[in-house]
Amino acid sequence: MHGGDLLAESCESTGSIACVGLDPRPELIPDEIVRSAAAQSDDPRQQVAIAFETFMVSIVRAVAGHCAAVKPQAACYEAYGSVGWQVLERIVAEARRLGVPVILDAKRSDIGSTAVHYRQGLLTSSPPLVGSEQLPGLGVDWLTANPYLGADSVEPLIGVPEEGKGVFVLVRTSNPGAQDFQDQVVGDGSLLKVVAAKVHEWGQGRRGASGFSDVGAVVGATWPSEAAELRAMLPDTLFLVPGFGAQGASASQAVAGCTDQGTGIIVNSSRAILGAWQSETDRIDPVDAARTALDEMNEQLCAALP
Amino acid sequence: MHGGDLLAESCESTGSIACVGLDPRPELIPDEIVRSAAAQSDDPRQQVAIAFETFMVSIVRAVAGHCAAVKPQAACYEAYGSVGWQVLERIVAEARRLGVPVILDAKRSDIGSTAVHYRQGLLTSSPPLVGSEQLPGLGVDWLTANPYLGADSVEPLIGVPEEGKGVFVLVRTSNPGAQDFQDQVVGDGSLLKVVAAKVHEWGQGRRGASGFSDVGAVVGATWPSEAAELRAMLPDTLFLVPGFGAQGASASQAVAGCTDQGTGIIVNSSRAILGAWQSETDRIDPVDAARTALDEMNEQLCAALP
Repeated sequence: MHGGDLLAESCESTGSIACVGLDPRPELIPDEIVRSAAAQSDDPRQQVAIAFETFMVSIVRAVAGHCAAVKPQAACYEAYGSVGWQVLERIVAEARRLGVPVILDAKRSDIGSTAVHYRQGLLTSSPPLVGSEQLPGLGVDWLTANPYLGADSVEPLIGVPEEGKGVFVLVRTSNPGAQDFQDQVVGDGSLLKVVAAKVHEWGQGRRGASGFSDVGAVVGATWPSEAAELRAMLPDTLFLVPGFGAQGASASQAVAGCTDQGTGIIVNSSRAILGAWQSETDRIDPVDAARTALDEMNEQLCAALP
Repeated sequence: MHGGDLLAESCESTGSIACVGLDPRPELIPDEIVRSAAAQSDDPRQQVAIAFETFMVSIVRAVAGHCAAVKPQAACYEAYGSVGWQVLERIVAEARRLGVPVILDAKRSDIGSTAVHYRQGLLTSSPPLVGSEQLPGLGVDWLTANPYLGADSVEPLIGVPEEGKGVFVLVRTSNPGAQDFQDQVVGDGSLLKVVAAKVHEWGQGRRGASGFSDVGAVVGATWPSEAAELRAMLPDTLFLVPGFGAQGASASQAVAGCTDQGTGIIVNSSRAILGAWQSETDRIDPVDAARTALDEMNEQLCAALP
């Protein structure tokens, strides 16, 4: 299926525009899972792998069907090298088995011939040795990408629409420092508007049946007025919206970039869902707490949509 | 040792400002290594791992002592997921064993709390589970980073000088598309000058005994006039210079950003060294061919330096 349609249809079939961030930071892992992992292995790196896989797989199963997508944060896995990557592979496989679209938040970028390797390994098929067979890649559906290197670094990541993949290009990130470069005044606008115009250009001729293209934009929930301006520039572009919840943005801020029909946005929350168990004073099952936090997020977002 | 001093001293002790790019693209792997890998495993992914490790370890051993550093390209390994990361870990370990400084070309970037994970996993120590012991990370010496997200995304990668690490921030990349955003007119300069000014700011108070700081800049060899301008702005900054050789820049272009003393630059070549065996009409040992190509590169760079 076309990459834009995949996410648009997932929003419709689940009735949710939420994305669950799968960021297994050590401090978010419930104590009982940490203890169980320690009982299963003496190797601290394997303990991390067991704990991360146990918690993240439980989360994926609990949220499947109740969110538009899941979004593993590559850094949280890559922090443990090949062992972390094995965990990522298992979690992506579980999400795919359950039919949950996967957005890998890796913010990759490189010059053209190298960017091809990122697309192949993460979205499609790993480059084979000469004379050898194709190898399946990680197989996520969408990837986040950093535009600083220019069009010839982003275009190889985008590939052809027939492969059913998509790329969210960073336009306006959710962090306070986003202003440092993205707000630099260029002409009568700003750098982020220049990047947005390129995102529009890259998406031309790539719209699916949903009306959305497979070239999306990252637009932080913490910048609602920019989000509204960007929507006016990018009517056919899916927005991945980080910054809701733990990063401080409200539901009404998070939906500021939606279309007039209340579509076109996927709002991510990571810490507020995975760490929901930490804010409960009574003992509660951490996976139940995550699911309850997701349900509340869905309600808040629904209420905030036009 | 201070990160800046590590590279400056390596240039001095080896008499080389060359960096050997360890980019194991399938088409660069010699036929006999491909055949040998196929004989050792039926699994095409393991074949890739065996072939990459065999060739890259041989290259590292051949170039150790004759180049300032080696630079694995993360994408070439990540294209094979956890198996590729295992290979990367082994190659980094071999370079460290031989005392060759390692620059990981990963162009990472993320918001602060996530950028910390990249620093930990790639440069220092992986974040442990609560109550568990520290885990060694990949342990490279320098990392490349993309600045688009702003200061609060780069600063967590930089960390403290005492850890003996360094970060090369992308300022002017070597690809033709570098102009798309980096050349946008900002004030009376351009975006890349704004980024360069931040690199200067981030490096303040971080100079080692060599006079260079541990916050470097990527400045493509394909843009020599920009390199000279950037050197005037950044007298204490090490430049990582990609684009020499296969990407088309000459030795005199590659050294355009050096200081008046002919220092402060590390010039990378990947394909022209790893694939040197392909341009020989006679049968030649691919590792010998790589070493010869490195020697020639060293001669060309030395001759071009002031």
